[in-house]
Amino acid sequence: MEPTTPPLRIALAQVDTCVGDVAGNAATVLEWTRRAADAGARLVAFPEMTLTGYPIEDLALRASFRRAAYRAGDDLARTLADEGLGDMTVVVGTVGARPIKERPMAALGSPSRPTNRAIALRGGRVVASYDKHHLPNYGVFDEFRVFTPGDSTCVLDVDGRRVGLVICEDIWQDGGPVAALAAEDLDALLVVNASPFEEGKGHQRTELAARRASEVGAPLLYVNQVGGQDDLVFDGGSFVVAPGSGAPLTSAPQFVPDLLVWDLPARGEALPRGTVAPPLEADEEVYRACVAGLAGYVRKNGFRSVVLGLSGGIDSALTAAIAADAIGGENVVGVSMPSAYSSGHSKDDAADLAERLGADYRVQPIAPMVDAFQGELHLDGVAEENLQARVRGVLLMAISNREGHLVIAPGNKSELATGYATIYDAGSIGGYAPIKDVDKSQVWRLARWRNNHALDAGEIPPIPESSITKPPSAELRPGQLDQDSLPPYDVLDEVLDAYIEHAEGRAELLARGFDPEVVDKVVTLVDRAEWKRRQYPLGTKVTALAFGRDRRLPITSRWREPQEGNPS
Amino acid sequence: MEPTTPPLRIALAQVDTCVGDVAGNAATVLEWTRRAADAGARLVAFPEMTLTGYPIEDLALRASFRRAAYRAGDDLARTLADEGLGDMTVVVGTVGARPIKERPMAALGSPSRPTNRAIALRGGRVVASYDKHHLPNYGVFDEFRVFTPGDSTCVLDVDGRRVGLVICEDIWQDGGPVAALAAEDLDALLVVNASPFEEGKGHQRTELAARRASEVGAPLLYVNQVGGQDDLVFDGGSFVVAPGSGAPLTSAPQFVPDLLVWDLPARGEALPRGTVAPPLEADEEVYRACVAGLAGYVRKNGFRSVVLGLSGGIDSALTAAIAADAIGGENVVGVSMPSAYSSGHSKDDAADLAERLGADYRVQPIAPMVDAFQGELHLDGVAEENLQARVRGVLLMAISNREGHLVIAPGNKSELATGYATIYDAGSIGGYAPIKDVDKSQVWRLARWRNNHALDAGEIPPIPESSITKPPSAELRPGQLDQDSLPPYDVLDEVLDAYIEHAEGRAELLARGFDPEVVDKVVTLVDRAEWKRRQYPLGTKVTALAFGRDRRLPITSRWREPQEGNPS
Repeated sequence: MEPTTPPLRIALAQVDTCVGDVAGNAATVLEWTRRAADAGARLVAFPEMTLTGYPIEDLALRASFRRAAYRAGDDLARTLADEGLGDMTVVVGTVGARPIKERPMAALGSPSRPTNRAIALRGGRVVASYDKHHLPNYGVFDEFRVFTPGDSTCVLDVDGRRVGLVICEDIWQDGGPVAALAAEDLDALLVVNASPFEEGKGHQRTELAARRASEVGAPLLYVNQVGGQDDLVFDGGSFVVAPGSGAPLTSAPQFVPDLLVWDLPARGEALPRGTVAPPLEADEEVYRACVAGLAGYVRKNGFRSVVLGLSGGIDSALTAAIAADAIGGENVVGVSMPSAYSSGHSKDDAADLAERLGADYRVQPIAPMVDAFQGELHLDGVAEENLQARVRGVLLMAISNREGHLVIAPGNKSELATGYATIYDAGSIGGYAPIKDVDKSQVWRLARWRNNHALDAGEIPPIPESSITKPPSAELRPGQLDQDSLPPYDVLDEVLDAYIEHAEGRAELLARGFDPEVVDKVVTLVDRAEWKRRQYPLGTKVTALAFGRDRRLPITSRWREPQEGNPS
Repeated sequence: MEPTTPPLRIALAQVDTCVGDVAGNAATVLEWTRRAADAGARLVAFPEMTLTGYPIEDLALRASFRRAAYRAGDDLARTLADEGLGDMTVVVGTVGARPIKERPMAALGSPSRPTNRAIALRGGRVVASYDKHHLPNYGVFDEFRVFTPGDSTCVLDVDGRRVGLVICEDIWQDGGPVAALAAEDLDALLVVNASPFEEGKGHQRTELAARRASEVGAPLLYVNQVGGQDDLVFDGGSFVVAPGSGAPLTSAPQFVPDLLVWDLPARGEALPRGTVAPPLEADEEVYRACVAGLAGYVRKNGFRSVVLGLSGGIDSALTAAIAADAIGGENVVGVSMPSAYSSGHSKDDAADLAERLGADYRVQPIAPMVDAFQGELHLDGVAEENLQARVRGVLLMAISNREGHLVIAPGNKSELATGYATIYDAGSIGGYAPIKDVDKSQVWRLARWRNNHALDAGEIPPIPESSITKPPSAELRPGQLDQDSLPPYDVLDEVLDAYIEHAEGRAELLARGFDPEVVDKVVTLVDRAEWKRRQYPLGTKVTALAFGRDRRLPITSRWREPQEGNPS
């Protein structure tokens, strides 16, 4: 009778890295490898580009940074061995050097590019490496710009088991390294990822992974980065799937660091199941993404507190609630900046919100400053409205300068897309805009979800009910309401999604059954907003982000969606 | 005796297109084709992506835009024939459709991408097409992101002559379509381009082109776009070279539209020479690039006038002079916004400048507004300095809102790179920053060049001498001088160029012989400036541009250039 092969215990370390913090990221690997060893694992895998952070963009082109990352991999291998972890196999992501064909005129913009590499550390040294083949260069990804593709496959031997290794986009493309690994008689396929959150992406990941598992005839282990980095949010949700239909055998929760441990059995034995994190409902998932994004931005940039204007409206209320969940209400400074047109309920709602959140609340009327400008300029109409809004922006910047808080901007996606906002106002200045990817309809849904979540937990709902129920207004002139200038938000947001996110034209929008008048109104608003941004692109982002999807548009473009009967 | 082959007259139409203005660009092609026909040409070639404009970025992913461009090519062929130009061969750039392999999960970001195409029109229809092989995706280029590469070659038959056709980057890469065309027995190689201006790039273009001409054994005709588009400047300078060393046989001037006509002789006959545009000296070339960039931005966005703050200092003086050259002094509004710390000579210099330029000059003291803010906020130190600067920003925005001028920002590259500027001040707000790619040393050189150029022409120098000679100061506190906070500008600018533009690390900077103390100071300033921008990335551009070269950096990065002895 043959001796039974014991199972191979594998740990997926779903960690939060920081771009550029090579030493800090290496320390994270050491800490979590120790945890994995304590849990009895023999192999521990970390996300894509662990040591460098992800995405590093053009930092990849800086030689001193690349050298630091190369050295960090070698140093980490030795440190792990010195710390008694030398018999673990540790898979970490980094950059790699590879001879590449340079273009003839190197001075003109094609500096040396590294590979996007995963290395396996064991016994004090790097024992294997794999360079990513497929370099995504769409949406938020710029990898073809900064990396050189690999062309080899990699199979790790861990205690006699054959573990194939690929990186993120490699499984999203047919053919390539996964197809090559199908002939490699694998025991498991390990995929290391930095896969940004998008609404509804979870199912796509597991279904695709199960398909790739079928291709190689072995279970697939998927480890993902977690946490906010710049304008991306990584949601974690690491998992293991069997070949077949896609329901995970075990999975880690989203939006928190986690160590997911799974035992790879001997060949022919049944694949074990573990804990499966219950899927989040849509609104909770987006709310948590917003919290993770802001928390990461604040912490990774060395801030401890934020300041924002509180108008009493739903956008600033939701943003403040997200901030309180991200860094604690006591680290949120909310400033009410009433004007002559601010209603009494606005000021009450702002104060009520701040009290519910435990925020530092201040009131700073803007009349003295507005009067001083008007004494000189005598503005009227939109110029006068914008002046009020910009005085608020200057006030927040001054408080930030004096006290060191990060200014956050509560502009939502619907108003940014339609240009229904003042440039350099309190809604658009600052370092981070937590709900810029959330349309107005979803702003209300997230606010309701957050309040209901509090009620379910027996807590006080953070957002005053009247901020949710009252009709939205910029309060920059008497009786002003958003709905005087915009289509109803539910319709507006559907058209915006089709026109901006799916790049549909007028013909496609009409074919979906939208009212032609509404379509032309929305298209005109968006095109005008782009024109408006051209006056001040130094002060606004010209991309519209949607949780991991963005666009790069020319600043100056005369392209207008055709508005007439022509079915272009 | 064989009949003599007559020469083939070819015209290179160095035109200024506008991104998205498909109808306007088609009209430009019609107009210049008529000129080429009047000049006796049989073949006229236009720059890369003539009909769509360049760069179109993610507009390429919008189906309705692509359809409009496809239709415009067919329509243009018919219009040319209808207008009696059907026997001309007209080469124009556009986008092309091509079956492509989609990734399996199309929803996740890989929409249909067109090709970067050149089409030949004759006899009322499209008679040939070529899809660009090499898609640059570095520096300012994003072509791999938005296009699909071609894989065929194209040889046009024009009156029995074999003319190879390739696009821009195709000649910057070894191998590829040029190598394939070497076997095609060409009479000429036509290269259509949208090649952005970089300092000193002209020689590289002609030398490379001569090398490619040698490869195919035929003269090379290079037609380039001209004019400002977004943050790029296209300098034209179209030319013809023989196989060999690179001196052009004929060339068009830089920065102006031009029709360059050249006769391709019968095989074996000597290649004729034509007018060669004299090369511009370095400072003139950069000055004209700044003028072209601003002029294009203003015109293509539908503005007629600009407004900027005039401090009496060199940056705003040079910017105003550039603006006057771009759109006429009478379309420039200069606003002096003195504070308690503004010196008398500053106000005099600003007034003097405005008079020399024929600009609309206004004085708006900031004391009433600063006093109103200070009555509420009681700021001191840097927060007080920034407040003064931001009040100026709000004033310019208000004037812009009221009167419709484009706000332009006179920030220079040295101060933007080192963070020696207030965010949202009069130097950084607005729609276009004409000298953001010009370092301070070059600011002075350009000012002197412009004044000398005026003297040579018997005109009044536009920039007051004292704005050039006085020591630079932000005048935000008494006696403040730039040199109290920064290394001398000549040294600073050399280190900035190496550290930012060439991505050199500390080791490389020291190896060049820079003083270690200065290196550490500059590196710290730049890294801190990047941190500062992270507080307000919604309000500043985080890329540093250098005439066609830019960087994409992570917003949040903890990477710091190592400062100690470690030769990383």
